Amino acid sequence: MPYVNIRIAGSLSREQKKKIALEITDTLERIAHKPKSYTYIAFDELPNENWAIAGNLLDEGD
Amino acid sequence: MPYVNIRIAGSLSREQKKKIALEITDTLERIAHKPKSYTYIAFDELPNENWAIAGNLLDEGD
Amino acid sequence: MPYVNIRIAGSLSREQKKKIALEITDTLERIAHKPKSYTYIAFDELPNENWAIAGNLLDEGD
Amino acid sequence: MPYVNIRIAGSLSREQKKKIALEITDTLERIAHKPKSYTYIAFDELPNENWAIAGNLLDEGD
Amino acid sequence: MPYVNIRIAGSLSREQKKKIALEITDTLERIAHKPKSYTYIAFDELPNENWAIAGNLLDEGD
Amino acid sequence: MPYVNIRIAGSLSREQKKKIALEITDTLERIAHKPKSYTYIAFDELPNENWAIAGNLLDEGD
Repeated sequence: MPYVNIRIAGSLSREQKKKIALEITDTLERIAHKPKSYTYIAFDELPNENWAIAGNLLDEGD
Repeated sequence: MPYVNIRIAGSLSREQKKKIALEITDTLERIAHKPKSYTYIAFDELPNENWAIAGNLLDEGD
Repeated sequence: MPYVNIRIAGSLSREQKKKIALEITDTLERIAHKPKSYTYIAFDELPNENWAIAGNLLDEGD
Repeated sequence: MPYVNIRIAGSLSREQKKKIALEITDTLERIAHKPKSYTYIAFDELPNENWAIAGNLLDEGD
Repeated sequence: MPYVNIRIAGSLSREQKKKIALEITDTLERIAHKPKSYTYIAFDELPNENWAIAGNLLDEGD
Repeated sequence: MPYVNIRIAGSLSREQKKKIALEITDTLERIAHKPKSYTYIAFDELPNENWAIAGNLLDEGD
């Protein structure tokens, strides 16, 4: 541990995932004193159709 | 918040997801007094092969 | 399945959880055709201090 | 319940999932006294690009 | 990885958790070829009041 | 969305959670272009007894 799960609608580029992983791993080392080698980060990229806010799917135009 | 994660084996149509999102968001507003705009709902549709009940994968015929 | 995980900050009364469980189980039966006996619902009630929106913990007054 | 979520980078064969499901369901029956029919297991197979350890994506060669 | 999340209603003794962790870690090494040192297992023990099956909270007597 | 779940064994101070939430929200805005107000972060602090690495609970001295 730590185990970090990042869930978004839509997709991220490989470069974005790489930068996010580096920064969050660094954040947890500096602030929570977790050695970098302990941190697992898993990204879940969901279709817009699979995410709702306020009862509306994110792909909705109506 | 709230954050609601609905995990099923198989798939749902867009229309089913839309109706489920509307109803659950409404349920959480009426009963838990959470404003609709706060509720996130994420659907995970897993292959039948990735879900087991009683030790059997859901795609098993044997 | 389905497995539904409802995560909120703060707490719900037992009566609220009961009503929410009944309604969501009913929603998934009517709309997704999942038999009621298949639906698992797990509630996670987190301290306000453990939930952030827009970078602010929910217990923040500052 | 129990609900068990197994998250890996890469993929498993159907046969591997079947054996893992059988063994974990058996483990939970013997040790935790959970009837087999109660145990749900969900497998999430993530792309290597979506998993980071120590700040490095698992598909990284650099 | 792998990351395994075991969620139950009620509680497990420390000895039960220890045995379950050993067995699942062994299962993933033998069948999925994941080195033992890579496997994280997190147990979530929920109050019976926070788990519903078929729309009924697990603490219900009515 | 995004929804970020940070799971650790042991506990974090309120100050640590606040700083982590600020930094991760900022990371997701700069790199993934997610408006700050959209980002939910939930912290789960598990007892050491509930987390295993390599088959050993984190509270083990044996």
